[in-house]
Amino acid sequence: MTIHDTKMGKGPVTPQSVTTGPIQGSRKVYASPAGHPDIRVPFREIVLSDPNEAPVRVYDPSGPYTETDGGIDLNNGAPLVRKGWIAGRGFETVAGRAVKPEDNGNIAADKLVAACPAERVIRRGRPGQPVTQFEFARAGIITQEMRYVAHRENLAREEALAQAAEKLADGESFGASVPEFITPEFVRDEIARGRAIIPANINHPEVEPMAIGRNFLVKINANIGNSAVVSTAADEVEKLVWAIRWGADTVMDLSTGRNIHNIRSWIMRNAPVPIGTVPIYQALEKVDGDPLKLDWEVFKDTLIEQAEQGVDYFTIHAGVRLAHVPLTAKRVTGIVSRGGSIMARWCLAGHRESFLYERFDEICDIMRAYDVSFSLGDGLRPGSIADANDDAQFAELETLGELTKIAWDKGCQVMIEGPGHVPMHKIRVNMTKQLRECGEAPFYTLGPLTTDIAPGYDHITSAIGAAQIGWFGTAMLCYVTPKEHLGLPNRDDVKTGVITYKLAAHAADLAKGHPAAQLRDDAISRARFDFRWEDQFNLSLDPDTARSYHDETLPKDAHKVAHFCSMCGPKFCSMKITQDLRREVLEMGDNAAADLAAKAAGLTEAERKAGMAAKSAEFEAGGGKLYV
Amino acid sequence: MTIHDTKMGKGPVTPQSVTTGPIQGSRKVYASPAGHPDIRVPFREIVLSDPNEAPVRVYDPSGPYTETDGGIDLNNGAPLVRKGWIAGRGFETVAGRAVKPEDNGNIAADKLVAACPAERVIRRGRPGQPVTQFEFARAGIITQEMRYVAHRENLAREEALAQAAEKLADGESFGASVPEFITPEFVRDEIARGRAIIPANINHPEVEPMAIGRNFLVKINANIGNSAVVSTAADEVEKLVWAIRWGADTVMDLSTGRNIHNIRSWIMRNAPVPIGTVPIYQALEKVDGDPLKLDWEVFKDTLIEQAEQGVDYFTIHAGVRLAHVPLTAKRVTGIVSRGGSIMARWCLAGHRESFLYERFDEICDIMRAYDVSFSLGDGLRPGSIADANDDAQFAELETLGELTKIAWDKGCQVMIEGPGHVPMHKIRVNMTKQLRECGEAPFYTLGPLTTDIAPGYDHITSAIGAAQIGWFGTAMLCYVTPKEHLGLPNRDDVKTGVITYKLAAHAADLAKGHPAAQLRDDAISRARFDFRWEDQFNLSLDPDTARSYHDETLPKDAHKVAHFCSMCGPKFCSMKITQDLRREVLEMGDNAAADLAAKAAGLTEAERKAGMAAKSAEFEAGGGKLYV
Repeated sequence: MTIHDTKMGKGPVTPQSVTTGPIQGSRKVYASPAGHPDIRVPFREIVLSDPNEAPVRVYDPSGPYTETDGGIDLNNGAPLVRKGWIAGRGFETVAGRAVKPEDNGNIAADKLVAACPAERVIRRGRPGQPVTQFEFARAGIITQEMRYVAHRENLAREEALAQAAEKLADGESFGASVPEFITPEFVRDEIARGRAIIPANINHPEVEPMAIGRNFLVKINANIGNSAVVSTAADEVEKLVWAIRWGADTVMDLSTGRNIHNIRSWIMRNAPVPIGTVPIYQALEKVDGDPLKLDWEVFKDTLIEQAEQGVDYFTIHAGVRLAHVPLTAKRVTGIVSRGGSIMARWCLAGHRESFLYERFDEICDIMRAYDVSFSLGDGLRPGSIADANDDAQFAELETLGELTKIAWDKGCQVMIEGPGHVPMHKIRVNMTKQLRECGEAPFYTLGPLTTDIAPGYDHITSAIGAAQIGWFGTAMLCYVTPKEHLGLPNRDDVKTGVITYKLAAHAADLAKGHPAAQLRDDAISRARFDFRWEDQFNLSLDPDTARSYHDETLPKDAHKVAHFCSMCGPKFCSMKITQDLRREVLEMGDNAAADLAAKAAGLTEAERKAGMAAKSAEFEAGGGKLYV
Repeated sequence: MTIHDTKMGKGPVTPQSVTTGPIQGSRKVYASPAGHPDIRVPFREIVLSDPNEAPVRVYDPSGPYTETDGGIDLNNGAPLVRKGWIAGRGFETVAGRAVKPEDNGNIAADKLVAACPAERVIRRGRPGQPVTQFEFARAGIITQEMRYVAHRENLAREEALAQAAEKLADGESFGASVPEFITPEFVRDEIARGRAIIPANINHPEVEPMAIGRNFLVKINANIGNSAVVSTAADEVEKLVWAIRWGADTVMDLSTGRNIHNIRSWIMRNAPVPIGTVPIYQALEKVDGDPLKLDWEVFKDTLIEQAEQGVDYFTIHAGVRLAHVPLTAKRVTGIVSRGGSIMARWCLAGHRESFLYERFDEICDIMRAYDVSFSLGDGLRPGSIADANDDAQFAELETLGELTKIAWDKGCQVMIEGPGHVPMHKIRVNMTKQLRECGEAPFYTLGPLTTDIAPGYDHITSAIGAAQIGWFGTAMLCYVTPKEHLGLPNRDDVKTGVITYKLAAHAADLAKGHPAAQLRDDAISRARFDFRWEDQFNLSLDPDTARSYHDETLPKDAHKVAHFCSMCGPKFCSMKITQDLRREVLEMGDNAAADLAAKAAGLTEAERKAGMAAKSAEFEAGGGKLYV
């Protein structure tokens, strides 16, 4: 991996460098669906050392940063993948809201981070015209984004599956219906039914379209963000690039504090993945951190500010209603969502209904005009095992179901956020209830953490829950890092969180019976059995770590082609022994099993010969299974 | 933690130091059941800073090493917990098998590690007398070991549960029946039914008895061992101490190569937990690593050698039969068990039935005489997602069921080893089939790993599977470290593996509805909500890591009492906000929910007053749930 120095922006804190270059053992490729040269879909291709093994093509959200020479310049921003498509849709061009001092936390001029200089036209949809992917889908129109997503989700599935057709029917999908191949029409239909979204603000032309829905690959989100206590802008842009390098499909910018408008401009202009935010955080900054000073005007202004910048989805905690607040009073951990606690504070202080709930129609109108997707926030998610699946949580979920239908009526794309801390036996009902209450809108969950007792390891306590809820139908899993509950994640923590969630999402895809998921498992397992160490590293989710762990015990290059490893040493290698066994058994021919069974039964040579025909017939009759 | 220097043994490689002292924030306590002062059961007690919070007592397999001053001397070995009990059972005392040069791999005298000098009487059960815990249980006799285990499993449950009685019925046990309190009679009955074992060789008086069974707490095993390529004896003893410090309930010594007899003597004499081995490994060493030279005599001799040393359970791969071998020929990863591949090699070379299978009666007779428990090995476990649940795996499992009944008839304790690599949707059937085939004998699984694509993170891919299979009924989970598939685990890897499996086992206990499991989650969650940082660290599975992660962002001592953390900073702290909310809502009294619901519905003050009685009644009728 190399560090690419970009031109420096103005101001004391601007992005200066990000990680670029291919992941070890991989190369970036682009492919277009037939007849659509304007649609260039990125993949990561892993070339294997065995000439009989086809390259393995994997889903790749890392953008231009993993090209061999991506020509990255953060001041210019990422390539404008959607520019022509958006331009052709007849949206109005607007001057845009003027930046106000409070957008950057009223920071002193000498401490102001300059905005990203990359210039973009600001657009807004007109009333009555289709703007959102949902509106296009409902109108029967297949957008370029839908076509892009179809090609992206298919990977190189067609050819690979032809060789492994028997595996297609495996899995338990709990009612999902992942098709054998994804067509653009399938994508359109899923979006029209509200079962999937393509978060893609019309002011975010840099986005490489991706779908979130339970009939697509399970996706993962990584959170980044400064905080009141530490972090800088340069860190944030690199965190984005770093998170998507390892597989984050979307990124939420949870920044608070000063300079957030301008830092967000750097993130948006350089983000090839959808970016989500929680606008109430910035709104609260604008009223000096006092929830009681929040009102509709400052919130609305913030929505427009961020929508014009290109944010792709907003977490809106409109499900936290005044009457829900008392339901949380006897909880062990109360309200653990920041947005949830802010709104509960606001509601209870004046005994007022939430303005997010009361103004939900207007919020929809704003978000529709830019195609900002809803991520309906779970402000009352449980923060402990004791509070899982309680009345507060489910009352809010029911409200979210009600709001989903309103948002759909308004033409918006919607997903629903979910818990939190939930013991394993209470996970399934979360999924079932969410599907029922929210009309199959995509579920987007944080974990859930399956125990409270392992701070420092909550990427794991939550991956256990995430893999299961992903299997049951959750469309996107929000990562948790090892620092959860303890501190801010550093670079290593972000990577650990992303890889952990990639493996949980993949385990879910396998269990759902995704038709192509097992291709990568099979490729790495064949590499393992053949002692193709380099292929095994390169096919893994984290080649750098796999290689370095191997190097710790057997550092010499010769050991990368050794037919054993350090666990058992050369004498005890089961793989080596079994390779020999395989050869011998296959040389024995088709009757090997029946022949050996007869020997094991102690028959003499003559008895064996006489009985062979009968035994063969019996073997065949038993479906090839000897031990009935 | 302190490093305790012990007297040095003779020879070039002997144990020299192990980690001693309490885990931070904890203290070792011993408690005896009423009327049994000879039974001193260890617990780890976490004292909390809030005087209203009772100390939390947790299960503690770490032995004397976590005492404040344990007086550890590796040359003397660990305290003889069971000495008096065993002496009272009338076993015969034997001279013991003479150590042979091949026991230590025919190593040159100058390189021979001295055996542990701690002297122990060697005993053997007589024919006809009860020897094993199974035989005592069947005879209706409650042993001291059973009484010990009952007290150990109960923790301080009685008092704590009195305060949290409503939680008892939670969970989904899939047919397990964990009682509210464990009585000695319950332990006896579970053992007599074959549903639990207490692995405790009569030549291992140092063992602190523990139970493995699905109606007890889910246990975890850690593997240690040198290998042909690296490691020393000192490392091995410290690895044992290190693994049990963090929570390993049993330890398997998988050593191969030279000096293994003598290194094992150090491990056995200093192990307060049951030790398991795979005798075929040492037998293979004795025949120069050539599987074809193995025979019954060398294997039998090895069983006696290790049984006399005090090994508590043996993995015996007697389920790998000649006729199973061809079933593995078309697998993606063949046979991945070392023992399985050795036996398959042996069977196929001569087209002979396995001598382990044919001599199983004799193996039982030897193991019964010392109360060595069976761990019936899964030599044909799948090594990849592609091979999961195939004919080879299940044919072997059926054979293991057959062998279980033979071992029980012979008076032996039995558990069954399980996979391996299994995608989530195929895990449950493994448990169901194991319970059926093996008459509910305890299941002891390796993971299973739920995907093949994450080498470097297989502690996590496998924890996802382990938590689930533990929930479904597996009694003990064999840990997997981050180095799985790549290299030998170092000290950090062992700890990571143990903590990961402790959290998976605990998640399983919670989901099963273990009556006391949630007490610790609730205690840590209350600490979290109250900003009692030190209590939160101390209640966690790994206080050192939790504390160090917190220190990375907020290192000052003052922050350990701060009412916020680095994630959100002081202004955005949801916990702080919600503490205030709770106070206000509780001050509103019992009608808070109904009152606020009325306000939210926009009723006037007069309407509210008029409707209050009716609303209250409605609220009560709805079971306290507002949103129907």
